[in-house]
Amino acid sequence: MKIEGKNAVKEALRSDTNVLSLMLEKQANGLDEIVALAKQRGVKVQYLDKRVLDKESIEGRHQGVIATVSDYQYCDIDDIVNSKADNRLIVILDGINDPHNLGSIIRVCECAGADGIVLGKNRQVQVNETVVRCSAGAVSHVKIAQVTNIHSAIEYLQSKGFWVYCADMDGTSMYDVDLTGNIALVIGGEGQGVSRLTRQKCDGVLSIALKGVVNSLNASVACGIVVYEAIRQRG
Amino acid sequence: MKIEGKNAVKEALRSDTNVLSLMLEKQANGLDEIVALAKQRGVKVQYLDKRVLDKESIEGRHQGVIATVSDYQYCDIDDIVNSKADNRLIVILDGINDPHNLGSIIRVCECAGADGIVLGKNRQVQVNETVVRCSAGAVSHVKIAQVTNIHSAIEYLQSKGFWVYCADMDGTSMYDVDLTGNIALVIGGEGQGVSRLTRQKCDGVLSIALKGVVNSLNASVACGIVVYEAIRQRG
Repeated sequence: MKIEGKNAVKEALRSDTNVLSLMLEKQANGLDEIVALAKQRGVKVQYLDKRVLDKESIEGRHQGVIATVSDYQYCDIDDIVNSKADNRLIVILDGINDPHNLGSIIRVCECAGADGIVLGKNRQVQVNETVVRCSAGAVSHVKIAQVTNIHSAIEYLQSKGFWVYCADMDGTSMYDVDLTGNIALVIGGEGQGVSRLTRQKCDGVLSIALKGVVNSLNASVACGIVVYEAIRQRG
Repeated sequence: MKIEGKNAVKEALRSDTNVLSLMLEKQANGLDEIVALAKQRGVKVQYLDKRVLDKESIEGRHQGVIATVSDYQYCDIDDIVNSKADNRLIVILDGINDPHNLGSIIRVCECAGADGIVLGKNRQVQVNETVVRCSAGAVSHVKIAQVTNIHSAIEYLQSKGFWVYCADMDGTSMYDVDLTGNIALVIGGEGQGVSRLTRQKCDGVLSIALKGVVNSLNASVACGIVVYEAIRQRG
């Protein structure tokens, strides 16, 4: 997999990501920190013409740097569950299809200090180059578990003492739900939101107050609002 | 300007937007409501082959419908200021360059029931086709004022009794700032955030708790978190 852009590459070099090699544009500025990090980690660096990087770039926004890394390594759901003894906060994604949204959600979870993300293997975008870039490198610092079945994952978390809430319409105002303790929040996809069956599996439905005509928020924005309400309640 | 996609066109037809004409794909499904709204408003409808719409489409996601509308009509800042007697909530944008972010911010403001958005005329993306689509039609239901100078706009709002806060690092936790009453929130651009001069003009700096390594949120997500904190405080 390729990672491009200064921030994404910098974060990959700072994390456990297995960076195989680095392509740098010959005359590019502002890459000193990246060069130092690569040296420190013993990553092979090639200096190339801008047109070579332009050709190698997938996103067309390499900013003079492209890294080749091992494919994203998902963790096991237990790595997230066992990461802390208490007060765990997990985000479960149910049908996110837009890589920009997934990247942005990963960024929210990392910034808020959430313990991890659970991602369904099917009918859902996976971690790819666009996701890595949109996460501004956050993907290297947050645990993401890939599961075959979201519903089984919800049941498993419940068996481990988690309260699982989905964000959807016609639920309880999120301000009135206790979001402290071990909590998993389900965020639905861009089009249809949380699926009916997923909603049934949850312990409750949280709603964000919508006061306008257009009754839906972007999935990553909704995730940010709900996750930060949990952070507020946790003090 | 062209608007495409079912949601965006539907919202345009439901609002005051001046819809000049409508192109519909001959065999497309799920357009009955749009056809009914167009009939009700007396908008001319043309039924065309899919390949004609594919060609006319700017975004490549027309879903069988493209509307031609008058260019976006910005309002005057006073239209927002005078929209209500008290408890007004305004979002000021300082250097948003990504149309997806602007669309998503407009959607947040509409959903939260904010009174309007103030947008600088320069060094900032304006309302275009991508913004309209990403706003999911919200652009038709929220007031947006275009101003030549953001700093003068901040001073003007202060003279009208608004407290102006920017969202930035190293400020007061947003939970500790009173966001009731007449409030304007400044959201900075994707790259550099709120500019130094803008920050100086504000009455205070609000911060969102960041607990990770990657210390920045997507601009629209940050806007959602801050605006909804104001909504929570307003009850």
